Amino acid sequence: MPNKVRIALDAMGGDHGPAIVIPGAEMALDRHPDIEFLLFGNAAVIEPLLRERPKLAAATKVIHTDVAIRMDDKPSQALRQGRWKSSMWLTIDAVKKGDAHVAVSAGNTGALMAMAKFDLRMLPGIDRPAIAALWPTLRGESIVLDVGASIGADAEHLVNLATMGGAMARVLFDLERPKVGLLNIGVEEVKGLEPVRDAGRMLREYRPRDFEYIGFVEADDIGKGTADVVVTEGFAGNIALKAAEGTAHQMASYLRSAMGRTWRARLGYFFARQAFATLREKMDPRKVNGGVLLGLNGIVIKSHGGTNNEGFASAVDIGYDMARYELLAKINDMLNLSRHEEERARAPRVGGAAS
Amino acid sequence: MPNKVRIALDAMGGDHGPAIVIPGAEMALDRHPDIEFLLFGNAAVIEPLLRERPKLAAATKVIHTDVAIRMDDKPSQALRQGRWKSSMWLTIDAVKKGDAHVAVSAGNTGALMAMAKFDLRMLPGIDRPAIAALWPTLRGESIVLDVGASIGADAEHLVNLATMGGAMARVLFDLERPKVGLLNIGVEEVKGLEPVRDAGRMLREYRPRDFEYIGFVEADDIGKGTADVVVTEGFAGNIALKAAEGTAHQMASYLRSAMGRTWRARLGYFFARQAFATLREKMDPRKVNGGVLLGLNGIVIKSHGGTNNEGFASAVDIGYDMARYELLAKINDMLNLSRHEEERARAPRVGGAAS
Repeated sequence: MPNKVRIALDAMGGDHGPAIVIPGAEMALDRHPDIEFLLFGNAAVIEPLLRERPKLAAATKVIHTDVAIRMDDKPSQALRQGRWKSSMWLTIDAVKKGDAHVAVSAGNTGALMAMAKFDLRMLPGIDRPAIAALWPTLRGESIVLDVGASIGADAEHLVNLATMGGAMARVLFDLERPKVGLLNIGVEEVKGLEPVRDAGRMLREYRPRDFEYIGFVEADDIGKGTADVVVTEGFAGNIALKAAEGTAHQMASYLRSAMGRTWRARLGYFFARQAFATLREKMDPRKVNGGVLLGLNGIVIKSHGGTNNEGFASAVDIGYDMARYELLAKINDMLNLSRHEEERARAPRVGGAAS
Repeated sequence: MPNKVRIALDAMGGDHGPAIVIPGAEMALDRHPDIEFLLFGNAAVIEPLLRERPKLAAATKVIHTDVAIRMDDKPSQALRQGRWKSSMWLTIDAVKKGDAHVAVSAGNTGALMAMAKFDLRMLPGIDRPAIAALWPTLRGESIVLDVGASIGADAEHLVNLATMGGAMARVLFDLERPKVGLLNIGVEEVKGLEPVRDAGRMLREYRPRDFEYIGFVEADDIGKGTADVVVTEGFAGNIALKAAEGTAHQMASYLRSAMGRTWRARLGYFFARQAFATLREKMDPRKVNGGVLLGLNGIVIKSHGGTNNEGFASAVDIGYDMARYELLAKINDMLNLSRHEEERARAPRVGGAAS
């Protein structure tokens, strides 16, 4: 790893483009002075915002392009119109060319996935990208993947997700052997989807060295932090994530309305306002913004399109950690290792011989 | 509907059996004095608890049985050992025989579903039972189904779920034409599962008279109350429900710890304690306890196994409403109507003739 962490930013991505991306980048730079930014987008909009931020400007190189992917462009449309020239493409391509260690975009997820897959290609043995999310828990944070990159997964894909999530947890949480669980439903009469059961069997048999497989977890275990990594296919993962986000908003709204209803409550709020501020921070889903696209020959971070400065800065922070601690190399190592272990585990069965 | 609502209770179901069921029944009776209970279970345990509650005792008939289904019995085991004689079976069978309008059990879900299906049989045209849950929202409550009765669903089953959920919303929320949405994920590049898309197409074409199909909703829309009824297959539904419950617990725990940390926060808590009590009530998932088993020739309510008195009383309340407002008859009507409409919608296509 070089001295500087170079991060490519899609300045035009998201609902607000440079108005969020640039202040967000500034916040992240304050926290990590060893970042260098490559900023792709419309220089006429970017430059004035940079001029107000000399420190950021000094750490940033602007690469102008007129073409931006819209939030409602279809992936195929985005590829057709935006390949080679859009801010999103150029951001991803900076990683491919080795100009940046990581790419961050708040742009349209479908387009980002399609472009990243097209340009960076998949890691050997991985057929589809996954999106990993950081989930705040009572113990800290866990990684949940896939939260919506693709629908459905066979057992093999789930095992790959476990391996990639395990590598990410090692890097991000600095754990020797993170605990990995498979998301399932606990109702007795339905023992879960076939691929989930098969993946569970495979993980138990391979006994991976770099993470500990702890079995099935239910969706209410995620917030408890029972597992460091929760593995699921994209449909269920997206639904879990959105249900949790929706509930957090709902609770925050109950709290606001309860605290404003009577003078006693308002007085109570006055005294406890510092505690409420801490709480609000914990309850705000934007604080844990930044999905990591895994399975590609390069690191791409997807920020929520509608996030604020702080949220975009969080996404940059995650990209920074991934690059600084060489996530990609570690995932590659673990994938190679797990393939090796898998072959070893399979070998005796093929031969049918007792050891 | 007769003057009295007769409710069969499985006194032995749940983690705590009669110790929760009987006080819960007492609370429900206070709210609905027109309930009559049939209480199935071990009379030696039940009778002393009833003696302390003369009002409840006067409204209750105890039917003794020694056999109880354990929480970890497999459905097949429960059927083999508990058919004809267990408290759970007798509770369900009271509905079949017409002795009760509705059955309520906090016992093991798998056993309850298997017994209910075996004894009551499915409604014509419905092949599998579903569990409908009440979900608290910012606007009140919504119905979410299926939350775990069975994994996977074809388009036809999803349309049936929409019809049954629509009937339940008419009964429970007293709405002319409840809004029904299909749970999907909004990521553009993955347009959702085939059956979900097909069901959406079918619902748009049939234009059901008794509910309004509003299209796809995402999991964070559930808590907003965007739809009165949210339809999904059981795996995703269970995961959404558990993720939301887990998040509610997590937020409550953040709140508790934030309010105890400093003297200012504790003072604030003191002044706002009434507001906090209201809030706690809203945030407690036990307050919305009671899944409704739909699709059967009879109404069965499943209470959480680990619930408290208040939670069990909520489950009884739901059963009461379902019976009082003749849910089953209304579901039947709507299923017949929708089949009729479906045939009508199909007819011109079969004939190929213009109207």
